[in-house]
Amino acid sequence: MAKPLVIALDGMGGDGAPDIVVRGAALARERLGAARFLIFGDQAILTPLVEKEPLLKDYAEIRHTEQVVASTDKPSYALRHLKDSSMRKAIDAVQAGEADCCVSAGNTGALMALAMFGLRTLKGVSRPAICSFFPTQKGETCMLDLGANVECSAQHLVQFAVMGEVFARTVMGISKPSVGLLNIGTEDLKGRDEIRQAAALLRASALPMRFAGFVEGDDIAGGTVDVVVTDGFTGNVALKTAEGTSRLISAFLREAFQSSTLAKIGYLIAKRAMGKLRYRVDPRRYNGAVLLGLNGIAVKSHGGTDEIGFANAIGVAADMCAHGFIDKMKADFETLNQEGAEVPVNVEVEAEVKAS
Amino acid sequence: MAKPLVIALDGMGGDGAPDIVVRGAALARERLGAARFLIFGDQAILTPLVEKEPLLKDYAEIRHTEQVVASTDKPSYALRHLKDSSMRKAIDAVQAGEADCCVSAGNTGALMALAMFGLRTLKGVSRPAICSFFPTQKGETCMLDLGANVECSAQHLVQFAVMGEVFARTVMGISKPSVGLLNIGTEDLKGRDEIRQAAALLRASALPMRFAGFVEGDDIAGGTVDVVVTDGFTGNVALKTAEGTSRLISAFLREAFQSSTLAKIGYLIAKRAMGKLRYRVDPRRYNGAVLLGLNGIAVKSHGGTDEIGFANAIGVAADMCAHGFIDKMKADFETLNQEGAEVPVNVEVEAEVKAS
Repeated sequence: MAKPLVIALDGMGGDGAPDIVVRGAALARERLGAARFLIFGDQAILTPLVEKEPLLKDYAEIRHTEQVVASTDKPSYALRHLKDSSMRKAIDAVQAGEADCCVSAGNTGALMALAMFGLRTLKGVSRPAICSFFPTQKGETCMLDLGANVECSAQHLVQFAVMGEVFARTVMGISKPSVGLLNIGTEDLKGRDEIRQAAALLRASALPMRFAGFVEGDDIAGGTVDVVVTDGFTGNVALKTAEGTSRLISAFLREAFQSSTLAKIGYLIAKRAMGKLRYRVDPRRYNGAVLLGLNGIAVKSHGGTDEIGFANAIGVAADMCAHGFIDKMKADFETLNQEGAEVPVNVEVEAEVKAS
Repeated sequence: MAKPLVIALDGMGGDGAPDIVVRGAALARERLGAARFLIFGDQAILTPLVEKEPLLKDYAEIRHTEQVVASTDKPSYALRHLKDSSMRKAIDAVQAGEADCCVSAGNTGALMALAMFGLRTLKGVSRPAICSFFPTQKGETCMLDLGANVECSAQHLVQFAVMGEVFARTVMGISKPSVGLLNIGTEDLKGRDEIRQAAALLRASALPMRFAGFVEGDDIAGGTVDVVVTDGFTGNVALKTAEGTSRLISAFLREAFQSSTLAKIGYLIAKRAMGKLRYRVDPRRYNGAVLLGLNGIAVKSHGGTDEIGFANAIGVAADMCAHGFIDKMKADFETLNQEGAEVPVNVEVEAEVKAS
């Protein structure tokens, strides 16, 4: 039998911590079977919470830490001054090989900085990226970067494409995921230089990637491709615009159902179907933003999530471990690194621009 | 009595042209009262269509043109080779003072190029921008640029802020519109340099603008500010992401209502309320993207709209005329131009960065 999975948890990160962390771990334990948890944080607070969870208590070990990364702490501050924080220690456990992955609902910037420092990037990765799932008309799609890198070169985008493709293949279980570059038109001449250059590089690459060219904002929810690649600025705006639009329509729907007695009756009759709709767009189902490109698995849960969302984030981390995500990434980056010297970026792009 | 409004229409632009243009004009005529229309396009096709509209025929004049700008035509091609196109002639009518504004559902890039060439930009405007409405939890908000300018400097963003503010004041009827810069966080140090610089310039400006600082993607649908300012790349992605998300949830809602007999009955009972919801998110209500920063009024209707959407785009153009949009823009840019030399961009930004 395989060695049981060990999952390190930042017990103190997030709006609902430590409660939702402990309850989320209990829920995840139920689903994952033989997993074990290392929960970092204030022992005096965590112990009674863990004791209350019969499913968890025999599989969780509390590791006392004194410090907590606040949501307002700057990444540089967390890196320099919060070496005994629950977040830092959870990452350290992965780095030391004690845990297979870690999950935190705390400060995103600090988590990224601490994870980059502790786990280091994989060979060939210039910058890690944040990746997450989105519901679509066809199922699910993943998008990266969602905010780690404000400005990205063509090479960065190419690396994100590779990272996202491996993620879709391993975690989403798609055998040949299609990859698209987010742009403002699908014609070759549209958009920013770095995006056109990235497209040229991906077309020229020997990687066995199903590169689908450019996609637009409505292709995210449309499910046109399995992986949407973009810089962290655009990705973050798109993510939050989708969340905002979803909340707006939900609010309009609620108001419509309350607008008359007839509407209220209609709602009661269709309640079960509306529950299905709610389930399909439930942000907790898509919780778990993954920090890709690191030499270890770190998953960021939404700060405001509940135990169900946190359990889903743990599930994403466990999936990545179970499917050998890091090894697959290493293999693909080896191919890309070998190519690196051979693909003449400027020549490629000029040739493409001239041809179009 | 004031001189009746004269509206130039590109009779041949858009998927549903010329039908939806003529029927849209008839609908708009009903609402606007004493307006007159100059419809440019193929006389043989347009004449019978106009004859069928009793409300329109006495108020519309058909101007024959031979050429049509295709949706695939490059802006440079339209500019050089389609001088007798219905789109070009509609713009020329505004430039010559024959019409007060023009509306086209044709090729956006070509319309922008032809309008820039024909109408020229207002003094102080480096680049025109595309602006449109969005439904929000609080009513409506407008956002610009939606795709005309892929890369924008701080100065461009400042100009867009001024243009959007005047638009919200005149067309949306908000006496003191609030203006936000789209970013990936609300803290001073977040985001790209040009956005932080634009914020510093707007804070330092003597313009009577209610500048609200940075907003994020979910603030668009949240209605946090009246005007959202961003570069054309990000704006276009956000616009299409919002459209895609809206379509996704509508599809999920339709499926939910069809998922069981009970759900179907619930739908029938709540049908009127659901109609209200549909109305609130109907893209035709938000049709009419305005080309701001020009020395004349040009409105772009969505290419795939129907006559209701086209009539709304005409309504936006008519509103801009009725409220003296161009004169208000000129006045505000005069203030900005006077300031131009006085605001030391780099000093301002450095001071702000140091202070934070």
